[in-house]
Amino acid sequence: MNSPVPAAEYDVIVIGGGPAGENAAAYAIANSDRTAAIVERELVGGECSYWACIPSKALLRPGHLLAAARHMPGITADGLDVEAVLRRRDEFVHDHDDSSQVAWARDNRIDVVRGTGRLAGERLVEVDGRLLRAGHAVVVATGTGANIPDTPGLRDALPWTSRDATNLHEVPDRVLIVGGGVVASEAATWLAALGARVIVSVRGDALLGAVEPFARERVAEGLMAAGVDVRFGVAPVRVSRPDVADTGEGRIHGGPVTVELRDKTGTSVVEVDEIVVAAGRTPATADLGLAAVGLPDGYIEVDDRLGARGVPGDWLYAVGDVNHRVALTHMGKYQGRVCGDVIAARAEGRPIDGPRFAASADHAQVPQVVFTAPEVAAVGLSEEAARRAGYAVDTVELDIAVAGSSLARDDYAGHAKLVIDTATDTLLGATFVGPEVGEQLHAATIAIVGAVPLATLWHAVPAFPAVSEFWLRLLEARRG
Amino acid sequence: MNSPVPAAEYDVIVIGGGPAGENAAAYAIANSDRTAAIVERELVGGECSYWACIPSKALLRPGHLLAAARHMPGITADGLDVEAVLRRRDEFVHDHDDSSQVAWARDNRIDVVRGTGRLAGERLVEVDGRLLRAGHAVVVATGTGANIPDTPGLRDALPWTSRDATNLHEVPDRVLIVGGGVVASEAATWLAALGARVIVSVRGDALLGAVEPFARERVAEGLMAAGVDVRFGVAPVRVSRPDVADTGEGRIHGGPVTVELRDKTGTSVVEVDEIVVAAGRTPATADLGLAAVGLPDGYIEVDDRLGARGVPGDWLYAVGDVNHRVALTHMGKYQGRVCGDVIAARAEGRPIDGPRFAASADHAQVPQVVFTAPEVAAVGLSEEAARRAGYAVDTVELDIAVAGSSLARDDYAGHAKLVIDTATDTLLGATFVGPEVGEQLHAATIAIVGAVPLATLWHAVPAFPAVSEFWLRLLEARRG
Repeated sequence: MNSPVPAAEYDVIVIGGGPAGENAAAYAIANSDRTAAIVERELVGGECSYWACIPSKALLRPGHLLAAARHMPGITADGLDVEAVLRRRDEFVHDHDDSSQVAWARDNRIDVVRGTGRLAGERLVEVDGRLLRAGHAVVVATGTGANIPDTPGLRDALPWTSRDATNLHEVPDRVLIVGGGVVASEAATWLAALGARVIVSVRGDALLGAVEPFARERVAEGLMAAGVDVRFGVAPVRVSRPDVADTGEGRIHGGPVTVELRDKTGTSVVEVDEIVVAAGRTPATADLGLAAVGLPDGYIEVDDRLGARGVPGDWLYAVGDVNHRVALTHMGKYQGRVCGDVIAARAEGRPIDGPRFAASADHAQVPQVVFTAPEVAAVGLSEEAARRAGYAVDTVELDIAVAGSSLARDDYAGHAKLVIDTATDTLLGATFVGPEVGEQLHAATIAIVGAVPLATLWHAVPAFPAVSEFWLRLLEARRG
Repeated sequence: MNSPVPAAEYDVIVIGGGPAGENAAAYAIANSDRTAAIVERELVGGECSYWACIPSKALLRPGHLLAAARHMPGITADGLDVEAVLRRRDEFVHDHDDSSQVAWARDNRIDVVRGTGRLAGERLVEVDGRLLRAGHAVVVATGTGANIPDTPGLRDALPWTSRDATNLHEVPDRVLIVGGGVVASEAATWLAALGARVIVSVRGDALLGAVEPFARERVAEGLMAAGVDVRFGVAPVRVSRPDVADTGEGRIHGGPVTVELRDKTGTSVVEVDEIVVAAGRTPATADLGLAAVGLPDGYIEVDDRLGARGVPGDWLYAVGDVNHRVALTHMGKYQGRVCGDVIAARAEGRPIDGPRFAASADHAQVPQVVFTAPEVAAVGLSEEAARRAGYAVDTVELDIAVAGSSLARDDYAGHAKLVIDTATDTLLGATFVGPEVGEQLHAATIAIVGAVPLATLWHAVPAFPAVSEFWLRLLEARRG
């Protein structure tokens, strides 16, 4: 190996320019003359901006809005115009041009270094042969990649991953989605809305494993009502695609795919035009040089300050999906903010013992919205998780059926549940299901993070006639 | 006067069966064998259910949803079909049949007494010659009626009040709305959406006087963009309608109306097909017999337990608009709940010193949504009100321009402002403007009522990509 060119110096080097890494870099150098670089091998903005949250929501929103319009007397609505929806999605992913994100970096005095970053020692990062040295900190924010199971014939069939499904250019007539999590449930929603006949094969007995059971059931019912064939306790065991070709991201990769599915009772065969694999994620650390800093391959374990455990010297951090705390963009960004604040404080010799310097919300105060039809919005602990954690738990739940929901659309159907810590009379968790309940979630997040007692929530009056009146109904039901 | 028949006995008598009165009655007798009666001279369910909140929102929602659909590529939407919208409105007001509300009362063991209730002495209510005696309490919940100014010719022109505008059966081609408050702003919104050419004459220099100035401006801009002619500093000084006839609620009351409008510079004349008066409210106490219990005519002043000031014996209460605390349905219902709890506790000899027994939110924690286009959602104190109250105030504000808002619709435009008490680092007020921001409000209400410090709100992470991400932007902007 030739010796690399002399190292470039930055105070902070972030490997991986997704939202978590961007936040870490910006916060680490804010209001200072520190310097930062983001090393990115694909697009600055990351998975979320180009291949996940943004394109998926751009594909989902028109379908949700159309459904609302169609259930409102006085409006006549046609759609979806698939081409128009895909064009709007293309605009949201900037046709995979990251120049606006690069401009953001420049405006925040962050250099963008193109290439694959690899840890080369303490405070050292190598980017395709070029050495960068960090004055203060290195932050790993490389995220994860789609996991392709070892099912015979599956890899050779060139299945779609989430990236193809969010960036589809052709809507397959018939599609099999393998998986039962958020990606599978949302992809099934938009593919069906865009006209595909969709089968979802779920290994377990429910969609969206971690959420309250009623939410899982309502999402499955919603998919089935949209014509999706949801099969539980089923897994592909053999895949065959004789006519196969990589025609590019989001394009159908050849001829029909034959998939043998097995459940408890036997096997069945389906033929589809594309297969989407949404079967978990793998940390994007294979090329990261973790061994060079004494870490095993895989996810990077961190403490609440986002510092890598087992690495002395307080210089290595990991934020976002790669630390395996919470695989959600907004929590990765949150970690990035906390991490950046920690780096800044340490660089300036300030104490880091305040609440600002701990990603405390990661553990039991995580909000998540699943943009299916109906939507699922959940924050904190499910009843099951709360009981498992040893809390004395009370719950209250009811259908969301208030004046505001009836007015919103004629087919409004929703459900809400609160999980209450009886010892403190505060909320541990909240789960809502229904159209656009994602926008109802932040109230619950504030109540949980703020530890607002239910006796106080009694005086937080929902405006009438808004959908949020269901909060009043929940508190009344709790009172009995 | 003949002596009335022997008095019927109830533990609690409520005069006025709107939402506030219904809540007071239900809470006063809950989980007890106490008895209650609601005295109602019109429809059980009250102004809100038949002539205000419900029909107005039924008229507004289709227009809002149509606008959203029209700004979503991939959807082609026609509308509004006026007949369909009016039919849906009729369903929401149950064609002015209150049997479902009467059934609710029966299910809650509340008798409905038809007629005009009048206070006849301590714990005595006369209903059209029949005497009712209250064992514990009488609650006045008669609300308010529309105020018609003394403008020459105005009464003779049989103008529409809010009742006609919410229950319109014919859409006037040309309509003048007199007033600049919530009723005027909302009526202008739906009348324009249903095809009327609308002029709004506002005496002052802004719509929606009490809200943050930016909210007033955005609502005015929204109306103007919808083709409404909003005129400030203008008042009608003479009205003439030669061909006039009372053709029924929500029907055009005769031929064209000529209205002379005066502003600082002079007078102008407009001709319209109907005139809507939305110029304030008058307490519905004229027939209430307030003198019999030693009270002056007008609004009934109450303390935080909703007890009428100046009436000894703790037996007379007033809830809802008639007590002039907050003229909003949800706050009237809130008062009803508190009042009912107070009555129940006193009846059972329990102490009433807990927070449950005070309508504490009435003073500075009141949420309100104005369902214009854009919507206005506000809770707590405006900056001006906070400064006037002597707080050391900081503010932060910005346009609502996050991924979630861009995804929601292509023309999303919104703005948000927080008013912060610098002494405690908590929120005093929040105001949001934009499409459907009404559903964003409860988060702010919980933060304010819960007195959650901003340092804690930092860990209440909005889910991505929801519109509620603007909370993060506000906190980041505050941090600077």
